[in-house]
Amino acid sequence: MIDIRDRVRNAALHGKIVSAEEAAAIIKPGMNIGTSGFTPAGYPKAVPLALAERMKKENFQVNLWTGASVGKELDGAWAEANGIARRLPYQTNEAIRKQINNGKIAYTDLHLSHVAQMSRYGFLGGKVNVAIVEACAITEDGNIIPTTSLGNSPSFVKDADIVIVEVNTSQPMELEGMHDVYIPQDPPCRQPIPLTKPDDRIGTPYIPCGVDKITYIVPCDLPDAVRPLAAIDDDARAMSAHLIDFLNNEIKQGRMPKNLLPLQSGVGSVANAVVCGLVNSPYENLSVFTEVIQDGMFDLIDAGKLTFASGTSLTPSPEGLQRFYDNIGEYRKKIVLRPQEIANSPELARRLGIIAMNTAIEFDIFGHVNSTHIMGSKMMNGIGGSGDFARNGYLTFFFSNSIAKKGAISSIVPMCSHIDHTEHDVDVFITERGVADVRGLSPKERARVIIKHCAHPDYQPLLTDYLERAEKATGFVHTPHLMDEALSWHSRFIQTGTMKK
Amino acid sequence: MIDIRDRVRNAALHGKIVSAEEAAAIIKPGMNIGTSGFTPAGYPKAVPLALAERMKKENFQVNLWTGASVGKELDGAWAEANGIARRLPYQTNEAIRKQINNGKIAYTDLHLSHVAQMSRYGFLGGKVNVAIVEACAITEDGNIIPTTSLGNSPSFVKDADIVIVEVNTSQPMELEGMHDVYIPQDPPCRQPIPLTKPDDRIGTPYIPCGVDKITYIVPCDLPDAVRPLAAIDDDARAMSAHLIDFLNNEIKQGRMPKNLLPLQSGVGSVANAVVCGLVNSPYENLSVFTEVIQDGMFDLIDAGKLTFASGTSLTPSPEGLQRFYDNIGEYRKKIVLRPQEIANSPELARRLGIIAMNTAIEFDIFGHVNSTHIMGSKMMNGIGGSGDFARNGYLTFFFSNSIAKKGAISSIVPMCSHIDHTEHDVDVFITERGVADVRGLSPKERARVIIKHCAHPDYQPLLTDYLERAEKATGFVHTPHLMDEALSWHSRFIQTGTMKK
Ligand SMILES: CC(C)(COP(=O)(O)OP(=O)(O)OC[C@H]1O[C@@H](n2cnc3c(N)ncnc32)[C@H](O)[C@@H]1OP(=O)(O)O)[C@@H](O)C(=O)NCCC(=O)NCCS
Ligand SMILES: CC(C)(COP(=O)(O)OP(=O)(O)OC[C@H]1O[C@@H](n2cnc3c(N)ncnc32)[C@H](O)[C@@H]1OP(=O)(O)O)[C@@H](O)C(=O)NCCC(=O)NCCS
Repeated sequence: MIDIRDRVRNAALHGKIVSAEEAAAIIKPGMNIGTSGFTPAGYPKAVPLALAERMKKENFQVNLWTGASVGKELDGAWAEANGIARRLPYQTNEAIRKQINNGKIAYTDLHLSHVAQMSRYGFLGGKVNVAIVEACAITEDGNIIPTTSLGNSPSFVKDADIVIVEVNTSQPMELEGMHDVYIPQDPPCRQPIPLTKPDDRIGTPYIPCGVDKITYIVPCDLPDAVRPLAAIDDDARAMSAHLIDFLNNEIKQGRMPKNLLPLQSGVGSVANAVVCGLVNSPYENLSVFTEVIQDGMFDLIDAGKLTFASGTSLTPSPEGLQRFYDNIGEYRKKIVLRPQEIANSPELARRLGIIAMNTAIEFDIFGHVNSTHIMGSKMMNGIGGSGDFARNGYLTFFFSNSIAKKGAISSIVPMCSHIDHTEHDVDVFITERGVADVRGLSPKERARVIIKHCAHPDYQPLLTDYLERAEKATGFVHTPHLMDEALSWHSRFIQTGTMKK
Repeated sequence: MIDIRDRVRNAALHGKIVSAEEAAAIIKPGMNIGTSGFTPAGYPKAVPLALAERMKKENFQVNLWTGASVGKELDGAWAEANGIARRLPYQTNEAIRKQINNGKIAYTDLHLSHVAQMSRYGFLGGKVNVAIVEACAITEDGNIIPTTSLGNSPSFVKDADIVIVEVNTSQPMELEGMHDVYIPQDPPCRQPIPLTKPDDRIGTPYIPCGVDKITYIVPCDLPDAVRPLAAIDDDARAMSAHLIDFLNNEIKQGRMPKNLLPLQSGVGSVANAVVCGLVNSPYENLSVFTEVIQDGMFDLIDAGKLTFASGTSLTPSPEGLQRFYDNIGEYRKKIVLRPQEIANSPELARRLGIIAMNTAIEFDIFGHVNSTHIMGSKMMNGIGGSGDFARNGYLTFFFSNSIAKKGAISSIVPMCSHIDHTEHDVDVFITERGVADVRGLSPKERARVIIKHCAHPDYQPLLTDYLERAEKATGFVHTPHLMDEALSWHSRFIQTGTMKK
């Protein structure tokens, strides 16, 4: 067994060190398992793999609650063992996605800032029975030093009857001190979250737990299964350039400070590309208040442009992770990880006035956004934190390519096939073709701006045709729609493989 | 002219007292006019009526920004004079609604908590040029004592170049002291809103203005054109009873304090009925943190059940208003009015853990809510504060009758024709038939619970049929929808006058 005694700083706890199999044996079918992990970062690996073996043999299922998506050793292995009955609040794993979309897994897609409190309130189907949390180390007092993410771990540890800590020796000890753990009280006793700047520290550098509350400690040395980022393509570069043009004008008009406001940027390649684009921008002294810290943020730090980044998870590419570990002494001065309840807090997004930048699957001419469903039915990943930020930011952007599947799909449609963010929540749309600033506009005005600046030329005439016919048929009503045609583009794609006529 | 000199407490200001016509003469076409008023309460009347006369003769238009809906002397008179080019953020007036739905008025339907800050940020098409604010009195220092609502007046007064104060002698002086005006700073300097209980006072009892900033003062004695509330019918009584049953069980399960959490209740008859229902409930020491204070709240105060109510507007029926005026000495101890930026603040809704209760036009089997559009196209009123509260409350309810138009419409549909609140935001649905608790459920589970407990028996088989065929056609995908049928109920109603086959 890997020796982790130097990382378990209270010798009295050494007796609780067991194998992954022993720890996994305590888990019973039907339990609610709350784990650490947010994106493939900081999730437990050894105990989940051991439990997957039991799942295969004993044929039993649990409910899995995490911070957000987790790596293959947890989501992947459990799904492949048919071990998940319920899953929340977010996932990106191929095996799980398949079972969510064939009726095997009941999936609850939640705003990431809601999860910890809903779990504490008892709103998610009982309480957390077992918390499994990855740690760098356990302190003298039995408190937990987390690793590359914080997610919902503090609340899961607080609420669970059984706490299993996986001490992962692949995680460098320099992570210690990079966390700031604050758990709000619940209503009616909740106080203001005392944070007014991205670099404020308001909590403890560890997850409060205590010696007695720890059930088992398990050694592990499997690294985070981080995933490569797609190369930055011309479309992403164009979106990034449009964003910078737009922000330059906002500064000129006096609607934005010169060093911008704290940036939030979503998951995925476009989001990363947009952040990378800022490296060559004129802006200095940028700050970040976001969920995931991707490679682009390291570029900004290296370029001396980013003074501070606050997030809930480090989600770099494999090269990015190596780069982070190699230079952790410097990066740790400029990065803090918080529970997602704080990182994604609506209260803080609005107070700090963040610039919210997220990616959409599709949006419609009237300004509604679909972040989650393919053709109205198939779950992709989940809403994640996009709603937490989009709804509360100073300025809310959504990005998308104007087309998908080589042009067979227009990502700008008459009506979204699923809506995660409404017309009330979005300020600006950006595709590789341009920028639609819809602030203060009525639906019919929005439609014209979106079609003109964001839609692909192949689809512009079709969208305009729909809008004009709907206006005539309804007598220029507030939001002109033809109920029997609004979703016909999606129907056509399903039937013919293209949205084109 | 009505003598208002005793209400204008600085004699130096008496020289600024002019007629409504003189004040209205300063307004130019194309200006952004920000007025007081929220529901038909506390809006200016004399100057708008005078301006309406000019509009009729001179044929010019302005943009009207308010707190929410306002009375006929403003929305009605200006719309009838074709005097409104743009309107935001909410309305309920028949004349305006018509022009919004025939292309004459560009209407921007905003979350009510967003308006003041978006106006300060300069996001709504320039700044407020003229503020017209109803007042009880003007203090020695030139500060404004508001009347029956606060809305966005503090920000409009702060930003406008021209400030016109309408001193209304029909408003009793006892209103003085019932307001608490707090204007947050804008990012990056915003601080936590220092409120942790509904009865906390965090600001001034007046709108800060100052002698020099006041351009004109106009006397007025027209009362608020409050509107009757529909009688409480059996359906509303049934919804109220379902709510109380549900809350009783939450208390029993330990998920709710015995005196509940601060209540928010929406506009309209159902909302009022639900509050009235609490008079005969077992709960004591209730508190209210809401937008509009309707008759039901006076019932609760009289019954000794309500310790405190915080809102942004008094919106009683004509009898309710009389009752309030008659007993204002008592009611004023238990009611405070705040700017809507505070009353509807997401930060506070989440901190206080409010119980959010709003009414829907329709909702769908997967839990999305339409608050605004009839048959996907025609604007009814607007989203109002429903999103501010629904998204951030401790427990979020939506109410609706299961059917409308004598059964020709099912208010529970396969897919909403417009979405204002998403599946991520709603906990519980209530119709006269029962309660659907969808917390923690997947979409397919939600659908079964909603059909079973909320839908009308006439439509239950049709909804189940849709769901089952969609499940089969899509292989039990996450959110089973048939793109060519999802909106067919609305199409059918438009074509045949009924959703029934
Ligand atoms: C929306 C989201 C899926 C986009 O991710 P991405 O990596 O930039 O997207 P891609 O362009 O690679 O598209 C993903 C897939 O959707 C498909 N797609 C894109 N647009 C589509 C459309 N309009 N209709 C149907 N499919 C579409 C792509 O073809 C691709 O399919 P594939 O996996 O079969 O190749 C992702 O950002 C997400 O999950 N967002 C929701 C959560 C979120 O915003 N979190 C951030 C909060 S901090
Ligand atoms: C949704 C809302 C319109 C319901 O108001 P209400 O007074 O309870 O509603 P009613 O039952 O009287 O219905 C209003 C109209 O919609 C019609 N209607 C109701 N359900 C319908 C449906 N599913 N489809 C089409 N029309 C419907 C009614 O028939 C009625 O029509 P009419 O004016 O021609 O008679 C109102 O609550 C609202 O505007 N909400 C949005 C703002 C909000 O929630 N604010 C509160 C925040 S504090």
